[in-house]
Amino acid sequence: MEIYYQPNLSNHTTYLPEEESKHCVRVLRRKPGDRIVVVDGKGTKIEAEITDANPKKCGFRILSEHETARKGFIIQIALAPTKSIDRTEWFVEKAVEIGVDSINFYFGKHSERRKINLDRVVKKAIGAMKQSGQAFLPQINTYDSLRELLKDDSTSAQRFIAFVDFENQDHLMDLAEKGSSIIVLIGPEGDFSKDELQLALDSGYSKVSLGNNRLRTETAGLAACHILNLVNR
Amino acid sequence: MEIYYQPNLSNHTTYLPEEESKHCVRVLRRKPGDRIVVVDGKGTKIEAEITDANPKKCGFRILSEHETARKGFIIQIALAPTKSIDRTEWFVEKAVEIGVDSINFYFGKHSERRKINLDRVVKKAIGAMKQSGQAFLPQINTYDSLRELLKDDSTSAQRFIAFVDFENQDHLMDLAEKGSSIIVLIGPEGDFSKDELQLALDSGYSKVSLGNNRLRTETAGLAACHILNLVNR
Repeated sequence: MEIYYQPNLSNHTTYLPEEESKHCVRVLRRKPGDRIVVVDGKGTKIEAEITDANPKKCGFRILSEHETARKGFIIQIALAPTKSIDRTEWFVEKAVEIGVDSINFYFGKHSERRKINLDRVVKKAIGAMKQSGQAFLPQINTYDSLRELLKDDSTSAQRFIAFVDFENQDHLMDLAEKGSSIIVLIGPEGDFSKDELQLALDSGYSKVSLGNNRLRTETAGLAACHILNLVNR
Repeated sequence: MEIYYQPNLSNHTTYLPEEESKHCVRVLRRKPGDRIVVVDGKGTKIEAEITDANPKKCGFRILSEHETARKGFIIQIALAPTKSIDRTEWFVEKAVEIGVDSINFYFGKHSERRKINLDRVVKKAIGAMKQSGQAFLPQINTYDSLRELLKDDSTSAQRFIAFVDFENQDHLMDLAEKGSSIIVLIGPEGDFSKDELQLALDSGYSKVSLGNNRLRTETAGLAACHILNLVNR
């Protein structure tokens, strides 16, 4: 059964937003009496029956409701948007599929890209959430600089920066603790500046390796995200 | 330093193929005396100096040669090409970045896509190999059906099929052995047919889980590939 998104389920809203209504009624030609699943991105998933196949405001009646509990761990990935935005959007889709709680975009000193269309990125995240049958939509934040991001991060129990040098080759898989709240900071395509690296280290981040191969920014972000899910399997 | 591909280094070839020459001379405007790195996809990586900046046949002189040893494990991913070929090409790029020895495409009973442009896919693999600084190009094979693929696979010590049911929820991360030769079979977008599943089980494949989330075909393929690399970290 296909899944739709209505962020306001907790307010007893019983219709789909306009875009979701259009997809449901115009594209998939759902009719009154058809059953659908609706998630609110905050853990609530309902099964519903369509009552009004209005392509702008598709009404439904709730048949059953299911609350998904939060997992016992938190995965945050901080990443500088890539020059080609496709790669960033791809990262968002895949990270959501695999499981991520928060994606924090920052603009690094060496980042070529200086802005990001957050609406588009959130849409990608919603699509991936629905496609992979999840009830939680990750938080997506942007920060003007790494400094701003580091200032705002007060919750993570373990903080890693994906940066390898000869003295620090510990693998994230070996350092990440099960059940922990973890943030991994991925460098921009032009790498961290010296100041940024120092700033992260001063803010309690530890250098960590994601493996021997040279990975693109978006691949490194996804690898980190997957590793943290595996640690918590 | 940028990396170029010349598959015939072992024949003492000392020029780049046409497309690589064009990129080197026309796009990056390399001149005689400039240094480049060339890999042959079979483990040889050389450092060279450009001697003839010919945009169709860029000549070079070998300065040093390095043979990369094969790793002690083999990762094979078998996957049905996705309806949207972008997703398959994306999988190839990312799998090569992360590390894969062989990608085996097959057309499943429920596959919507019935053909694949192997040249394009190999180009993606070459691009990813160069970008990630590797010297080996994975083998890429296609099979008309799952049956053909299973017939041809005689080398893998461990064989897994990514298929979860209530009785079989063992995670690939827990079953895969370090240093082993492993193949993981990923289902098509329409899933395996009953016959295909039975055929794989009869051919010595064991069911394995890649985690709790419902993953797209290409995401599942990459997750399997990443897990096998992590087991061998």
